[in-house]
Amino acid sequence: MITLITGGVKSGKSSFALKLSENFKKKAFIATGVAFDEEMKKRIEKHKQERIGFDTFEEPIEVYKIIESLNQKYEVAILDCLTTYLGNLYYYEKDIEYYTKKLIDSLKRVNYNLIIVTNEVGWGIIPENKLSRKYVDNLGLLNKKVASLSDNVYLMVSGIGVKIK
Amino acid sequence: MITLITGGVKSGKSSFALKLSENFKKKAFIATGVAFDEEMKKRIEKHKQERIGFDTFEEPIEVYKIIESLNQKYEVAILDCLTTYLGNLYYYEKDIEYYTKKLIDSLKRVNYNLIIVTNEVGWGIIPENKLSRKYVDNLGLLNKKVASLSDNVYLMVSGIGVKIK
Amino acid sequence: MITLITGGVKSGKSSFALKLSENFKKKAFIATGVAFDEEMKKRIEKHKQERIGFDTFEEPIEVYKIIESLNQKYEVAILDCLTTYLGNLYYYEKDIEYYTKKLIDSLKRVNYNLIIVTNEVGWGIIPENKLSRKYVDNLGLLNKKVASLSDNVYLMVSGIGVKIK
Repeated sequence: MITLITGGVKSGKSSFALKLSENFKKKAFIATGVAFDEEMKKRIEKHKQERIGFDTFEEPIEVYKIIESLNQKYEVAILDCLTTYLGNLYYYEKDIEYYTKKLIDSLKRVNYNLIIVTNEVGWGIIPENKLSRKYVDNLGLLNKKVASLSDNVYLMVSGIGVKIK
Repeated sequence: MITLITGGVKSGKSSFALKLSENFKKKAFIATGVAFDEEMKKRIEKHKQERIGFDTFEEPIEVYKIIESLNQKYEVAILDCLTTYLGNLYYYEKDIEYYTKKLIDSLKRVNYNLIIVTNEVGWGIIPENKLSRKYVDNLGLLNKKVASLSDNVYLMVSGIGVKIK
Repeated sequence: MITLITGGVKSGKSSFALKLSENFKKKAFIATGVAFDEEMKKRIEKHKQERIGFDTFEEPIEVYKIIESLNQKYEVAILDCLTTYLGNLYYYEKDIEYYTKKLIDSLKRVNYNLIIVTNEVGWGIIPENKLSRKYVDNLGLLNKKVASLSDNVYLMVSGIGVKIK
């Protein structure tokens, strides 16, 4: 079963994901974040401290392999988050289409409770920067694909999980 | 009957509009997009290929005239989109108030199923650029007016149409 | 009872707050806006003209004192808005944590109907400017805290108040 949690910055997405995973026993956490600078290092450390009882898998690119490797082994896993994952693909100049397809394929074979965190990033003025525009488009497309494969979708608003699917 | 579909970039607004119009026979498509550059040309071409069975009316400015001209002639029409339309008014330095009023007036006389697509653009940090701020304000005001005249309003989130009116 | 109204720019937040306060008698309005320039001066004046029958309290920083001073004296008060309030704390280089805590504490003691207006600002691309990023984070955190203390939370979309709590 796949659950997608989407929303704006600091809307409570990760906390909500942790809450949804509370009553499971064998738990995994797929962290896509790579610390490029001090600011991110702090964010990542803070997040780590917030989760107890999880086996953590840090993977910026080959996320689909982790998703597949957890089959039969875990009851629940949190993938946090698609936003950073797509950013990594851009940063390391990877083939977006290839990796997106691989990720989507892996989702179709998931047999545990996978909770995926992503962001809404296209509700502002269109960015002047072409790369940012591309990124916004691609995250929107990815979110749509993942949402269509998800059993539950929550939109987070000010810490409130609004069930929209 | 008027239906408004709003949401962020790549949230599935246009696809949802096409889906809502599926079971009608006599269909029109009011395209407000003007290709200023290659990027937009590609977007417009892609959109055109996605719709079959529509009579297309391309109009960047005098949209209200098209809306009125479809009365008695079509079962359903999609207006895609208010975002681009307002952008056109800015680009061609038209009187925003005049054209907004004309558009709103034309909506009051619609006797077919008009499906209007727009964007949410004011959910980010306030733009530094004054023109962008004005645009965000004016699109918000226009969306409110159109929503108040609409029978149905959907908020698109990751491809999911959330009915909010 | 606390009601939080959140949403994007020009989504109808303030009008909705005024509507919710309609049927009360002793009304207060806590205005956090300070006119830094002509543009803001006009916005503030426009807002003032829209509300009749309110005692207005203008306070950019010590908002928690106003909130507390209204206990036992008013049936309803509108606090408009957290967005500007947090901006003031940045502008006057105040201790964000201190004032946020004071505000939250004052909310716990409210015994009238307090309607709080705020903004969603984290649904766009992450701002390049570090201060803006911090602001987005802090407003998100503040909104979550206030929402968790609120009895009712509305998300405004194109003038429509969507009840999410």
